[in-house]
Amino acid sequence: MNVAEKPVIAAASLIGQRIQKKDAPEKAAGKTRYIQDMVVPGMLHAKILRSSRVHAKIKSIDTSAAKALPGVHVVLTAADVPDQQPIGVARDHLPLKGERVRSLRDEIAAVAADSDEIAEAALKLIRVEYEDLPVIASPEDAIKPGAPLIHPTPLDAHGRPQSLPPKTPIAFAGKPDNIAMRFDYTHGDIAQAEAESDVVVEDSFQLHYVTHCCMGVSGVIAEFDASGNLLMYSNTQVPFLHKREFAEYLNIDPSRVRIIQPPIGGGFGSKLDIYPFEVICIFLARAAKRPVKMVFTREEEFLASPTRQPVLLTLRSGCRKDGTLTFRQVHTLHDNGAYTSWGATTPFVMMQTFSSLYRVPACDYHTTVVYTNNPYAGSFRGYGNLQATFAIEQHMDMLAEKIGMDPLDFRLKNAQDAGEVTGQGMTFKSCGFKECITTAAERSDYRKKHADNIANRNARGPVKRGIGIASMLHVGGGAKIYPSDGCGTILKLDDFANVTLITGASEIGQGSETVLSQLVCEELGLPISAVTVVNNDTAITPWDVGVHASRTTFIAGNSAIGAARKAKAKILAAAAKKHDCDEAALDLRGGFVVVAETGEPVVELARLMRNLHFSDKAELVMTTFYYEPPSVHQDKAFKGDVSAAYAWAAQVVEVEVDTETGIVKMTKVTGTHDVGRVLNRLGLEGQIEGGVVMGQGYALTENLIVENGVTRNPNFRDYKLVTAPEIPEMDITFVESMDGEGPQGAKGVGEAPAICIAAAAANAIHNATGVRIFGLPFTPEAVYRALRGKSDKPHWPAWKPE
Amino acid sequence: MNVAEKPVIAAASLIGQRIQKKDAPEKAAGKTRYIQDMVVPGMLHAKILRSSRVHAKIKSIDTSAAKALPGVHVVLTAADVPDQQPIGVARDHLPLKGERVRSLRDEIAAVAADSDEIAEAALKLIRVEYEDLPVIASPEDAIKPGAPLIHPTPLDAHGRPQSLPPKTPIAFAGKPDNIAMRFDYTHGDIAQAEAESDVVVEDSFQLHYVTHCCMGVSGVIAEFDASGNLLMYSNTQVPFLHKREFAEYLNIDPSRVRIIQPPIGGGFGSKLDIYPFEVICIFLARAAKRPVKMVFTREEEFLASPTRQPVLLTLRSGCRKDGTLTFRQVHTLHDNGAYTSWGATTPFVMMQTFSSLYRVPACDYHTTVVYTNNPYAGSFRGYGNLQATFAIEQHMDMLAEKIGMDPLDFRLKNAQDAGEVTGQGMTFKSCGFKECITTAAERSDYRKKHADNIANRNARGPVKRGIGIASMLHVGGGAKIYPSDGCGTILKLDDFANVTLITGASEIGQGSETVLSQLVCEELGLPISAVTVVNNDTAITPWDVGVHASRTTFIAGNSAIGAARKAKAKILAAAAKKHDCDEAALDLRGGFVVVAETGEPVVELARLMRNLHFSDKAELVMTTFYYEPPSVHQDKAFKGDVSAAYAWAAQVVEVEVDTETGIVKMTKVTGTHDVGRVLNRLGLEGQIEGGVVMGQGYALTENLIVENGVTRNPNFRDYKLVTAPEIPEMDITFVESMDGEGPQGAKGVGEAPAICIAAAAANAIHNATGVRIFGLPFTPEAVYRALRGKSDKPHWPAWKPE
Repeated sequence: MNVAEKPVIAAASLIGQRIQKKDAPEKAAGKTRYIQDMVVPGMLHAKILRSSRVHAKIKSIDTSAAKALPGVHVVLTAADVPDQQPIGVARDHLPLKGERVRSLRDEIAAVAADSDEIAEAALKLIRVEYEDLPVIASPEDAIKPGAPLIHPTPLDAHGRPQSLPPKTPIAFAGKPDNIAMRFDYTHGDIAQAEAESDVVVEDSFQLHYVTHCCMGVSGVIAEFDASGNLLMYSNTQVPFLHKREFAEYLNIDPSRVRIIQPPIGGGFGSKLDIYPFEVICIFLARAAKRPVKMVFTREEEFLASPTRQPVLLTLRSGCRKDGTLTFRQVHTLHDNGAYTSWGATTPFVMMQTFSSLYRVPACDYHTTVVYTNNPYAGSFRGYGNLQATFAIEQHMDMLAEKIGMDPLDFRLKNAQDAGEVTGQGMTFKSCGFKECITTAAERSDYRKKHADNIANRNARGPVKRGIGIASMLHVGGGAKIYPSDGCGTILKLDDFANVTLITGASEIGQGSETVLSQLVCEELGLPISAVTVVNNDTAITPWDVGVHASRTTFIAGNSAIGAARKAKAKILAAAAKKHDCDEAALDLRGGFVVVAETGEPVVELARLMRNLHFSDKAELVMTTFYYEPPSVHQDKAFKGDVSAAYAWAAQVVEVEVDTETGIVKMTKVTGTHDVGRVLNRLGLEGQIEGGVVMGQGYALTENLIVENGVTRNPNFRDYKLVTAPEIPEMDITFVESMDGEGPQGAKGVGEAPAICIAAAAANAIHNATGVRIFGLPFTPEAVYRALRGKSDKPHWPAWKPE
Repeated sequence: MNVAEKPVIAAASLIGQRIQKKDAPEKAAGKTRYIQDMVVPGMLHAKILRSSRVHAKIKSIDTSAAKALPGVHVVLTAADVPDQQPIGVARDHLPLKGERVRSLRDEIAAVAADSDEIAEAALKLIRVEYEDLPVIASPEDAIKPGAPLIHPTPLDAHGRPQSLPPKTPIAFAGKPDNIAMRFDYTHGDIAQAEAESDVVVEDSFQLHYVTHCCMGVSGVIAEFDASGNLLMYSNTQVPFLHKREFAEYLNIDPSRVRIIQPPIGGGFGSKLDIYPFEVICIFLARAAKRPVKMVFTREEEFLASPTRQPVLLTLRSGCRKDGTLTFRQVHTLHDNGAYTSWGATTPFVMMQTFSSLYRVPACDYHTTVVYTNNPYAGSFRGYGNLQATFAIEQHMDMLAEKIGMDPLDFRLKNAQDAGEVTGQGMTFKSCGFKECITTAAERSDYRKKHADNIANRNARGPVKRGIGIASMLHVGGGAKIYPSDGCGTILKLDDFANVTLITGASEIGQGSETVLSQLVCEELGLPISAVTVVNNDTAITPWDVGVHASRTTFIAGNSAIGAARKAKAKILAAAAKKHDCDEAALDLRGGFVVVAETGEPVVELARLMRNLHFSDKAELVMTTFYYEPPSVHQDKAFKGDVSAAYAWAAQVVEVEVDTETGIVKMTKVTGTHDVGRVLNRLGLEGQIEGGVVMGQGYALTENLIVENGVTRNPNFRDYKLVTAPEIPEMDITFVESMDGEGPQGAKGVGEAPAICIAAAAANAIHNATGVRIFGLPFTPEAVYRALRGKSDKPHWPAWKPE
């Protein structure tokens, strides 16, 4: 377009607009190619034989018939891979089990064949002889004196010493008991604080097993090239960490491992660790000298992908009559399952909520994570915070009730403010917490409804109405857990002013491609369609620590902005030189370089790019940027400002409780989130709505039933996800606290919306019925029994170490 | 490794070493996945129906039976794509022919089906009615007055005006004759120069059809995403040019076209233009809403991929008795075939040889390119230079003989030197031409053998021995033909000091990945294995004009060095800061930062990278660079220094001619190339050896036999490539003229080695037999007839326009 034809271009911002996700058309059209759809020439198909016993010694494995089946290329057992090493957060987990199985998911053998069907048939031909061992089905049993040991020796594989260091400095496996991890945290003087308390409450809470239920089940393709370099097509959320880990595992230089991520059908934290199937797939590819693809069935996904960690939690909380919190003492007992993955580290996030959601002068937190023969827990959106918030936010209501204070006023009195530094060392540079509480309360008419529900409870029929509130604090500016929490960006403009944004940050469905494009376009005055995002290949993209801790918008966003601003500076300098004007007076808008003050176009950006490129002193605009947040690692006492920013929210849940059936219907959720600043309003709403529904499932319907080590409902008929008709009305609003470090002021919000729902629902049920339920989920049976005082205590026993 | 353990690291260079090609293990293991191997989920397979007549009107096309065949998804004819536009260098070529076919390769219909077999079966069901037109089978016939017109109207498709501009400013199609292009070049005063000549020779030469014979036949996969963006998996040598061209073609923004290059099984110039099959594949994908793959059969590759352009050439050359060249006058008549591709522009390269290989005061060059009903010619390694050199270098021998001067002395007397500016404006900044001649001559014992062969000719038996020399000049520093001749590079180092080199320059088997890696490693003191090259995706890589004109090492090499030097500067600055030493005193060697003078290690580079990354002021080393050579566009008189450097070579060919059978055996090739500087000695030798064999095929065995428009030998049984047993002994040496602009002093050499062989062979046959043969190839029949004075004149007629 000729500049002369172009009228003055007004300043316009993409920030806060509703921007369609860049991957939406492909996904809506069913054209997205997940790992399930991928075909690598020459690839084989693999299946895993899992244990049929919960806890047993393996006496023998006979694979001869499987090996003889036509179309079978490789059959592997532990004996075939003497170089296998333990994986997992505590390096306590051999991918192929040769001597002992510790849970029903345990991998005993694997087959690579010409088709899935042949591989499946081969599994049926493998004969395993077991000798059963006593099953430890609960953490309470695991810590009983004299309990059989689940890991009797540090490592039982081939008697070799453990060669890889554990992923965290905390020692896990190999203790002469079933304790996988134990730690203590404290700030303030608990004894004195308790002495100063007017009211103290103590309760135990039981949190159950749920699992991620990603629509895209786990899968991987592994292949080695002719030089022995490994290429993994993997759904991992942390490609750069896994690149290094696989290299360590294979004892090769990390440059020889390349991870390409196909579009990922949901992560939610489930893809933060290395799991046996990935390593087994590598072994199969190595043995077959062919690419090998392994994709879980849905049943396998339920049985062998990680879970949210079950917790028994005893909370003791105190306050003064005036509503000032005094102390909080917590003991948690975690069911680690048979092996240690990230679930074992969720207490570190729970701790933040205990220590810092509200101002509390003294906090004492003791945690114990124990091995059982149950499924093992990984990381899961919210990462312990759902469990902690479930307990704390019920106690907030209970304390308020005890001192006769309105639950809102009680929360507001103790809520954090900007500028505060907590006992754990978190520094709240931006904090819209109080505004979240008041906004959610006002929009839901909480005060009136809460009082009315109590006043009119008995006058109502068998269906009681209730309203409950809960609040949350979560990291919103990354979390400095690894040596670096940063992200790199490479940006190039082409001859048509289209941008390639090469970012380390992965898209796992959360919309990061769209938000990053938006941030770049905001700097460069371009439409979203001008950006192509490259984000799925460790050989191409700069480093990023991975998708976790609600960090991508904040960290990768700041990185993308950094690269875009460098590009903008180059562009304006070139325009100023070419068109003989003052660089500082120029801006980029609507695909043009304009005079900032008037909006008068100077040159079309695409034309300028070609001028730059097709000249004697030819140049392309290419920039790079690396962003590392100003957060710090926690010290040995778990203190330190671990995130560059913190997200806040309050959610009000309204329910109808049918006292005759125990059925709880969630009718409305009113949520207010301090997101720093709204970037993509549409994406943010989607993120919040999805999180609310996930929280709703956690509260009401989802329950992975594990009985004596056996998962009883590994399918979508018996494991009940919330479906569209049950989704409540939602009223979602945002507090824009304009975080000083955040990209355009924004903070991370990926995990936040799932966190409060169960806690708020518990408070709402209590508001409706006067009955408080301390265990999840609120199934009709559980609620029915609770309403009749028949809750089976052993299902949520008080627990505290001696 | 601990620095303390590391001894002093001596300076070492990779330059001039023998470095294995990075892609060799995959290729040798048969693991490389060419487009033939690729499977895109949901893809269809496509085939093209080609004309069964050489020149005809199409009366009707009936596709109904093909459409009804089960498994057929789409059948297209010209009538189904009313938006098709002409392609090709002159925009004279509609992909699907609806009204007229002009050669046997012409595309009439295309089918996309579930399998190749179904598509093939569907083709057989398509009925086409033709009305034959007179065939023009030679350029001589095409320019006869009153010859039927091959393009009777500017464009016969739907009567629409031509909407895309031609690729070159020279007007081609639509003239009221069969002439596709005509131009004239001159420098100096021909008449005066001829008057001053003591000797003048004039001969006509006939150059034949050969074709590239890439081991990987042509193929493409086209697909549109849900937003209508086009992704092409394409073997093109010029992805960025084609991205733009396909976008123009589809009338969409170039950002919506992405080209990914699978490993390419040979290019040699054949993949520089867009061909109908590519556009047809796009049409099929658009209609099917599915990915569509189209791969040629070998027969199709012979029939429908481009050829080297046949030429009738009349050369008139003069010199003085003292051996000084006086003038050169040339007329060339080119068989364009039915459509215009790059073949039509090869005269521009021929011109350089005529005007500038030797110092010649006057040069006059007239060329005419005419349409025929024959296959059409594209670009092909050497790009006209084989044809020009074949004529010139025979005349050099003939002139020398006429004035009784040794052919070597005659060449040396007229050879260019560094510093010279030719009549066409080329400036030879580095020039090892004379050293090439003397080295090749000395190493082959040329003078003695040449004299002996003449002296002993009659004394020998029926098998005569001959030796011949020829020289060449070719661009060696790119060629400024497009608005830019540059290349961009993005470089990143990871935490383990491994490098990702993102370059615009494609690998087509020539070894560019290896040489570029080497140049980067030379700067950064790393082993070749430390580099991963990313070079095959227009969405990721920065711009490059493409693989042609022997430019990649020079242009992309300088670009890679630029990025690597920026990285080195960052690294040394960081090391100096961290280790408190003088940046200028540091160097990079063997994976370490060292004190340059002593070689004493300061810090392991990988460790420094991690220190940089895992620090509060975290950083990654990422750099970008764009290199544009200092060459200029030619002016309207074809004058200008079009390349940043020029390559030189002399090749001595030795033959045995069996005078009883006409069989010519090439026994030895002694070649000396001015390559500026040897970078990868192994790669360079491979490049030279391959080129020599290609030249040998051109000289002796390869001949695409086209009779009356029909290609008679579209297969490897009848089209004779040189095979291993026939390959001569080779003695390859290099002159290192250390080009000032070249990367580490190097110049491009990709095309050079094929250029002189046929010319030197002609001189060798003359040396053996006393008979000079002016046409190619030197088949037994042709040689047998020539030795008996029975050469069929019409096979190489004298031709000159009136």
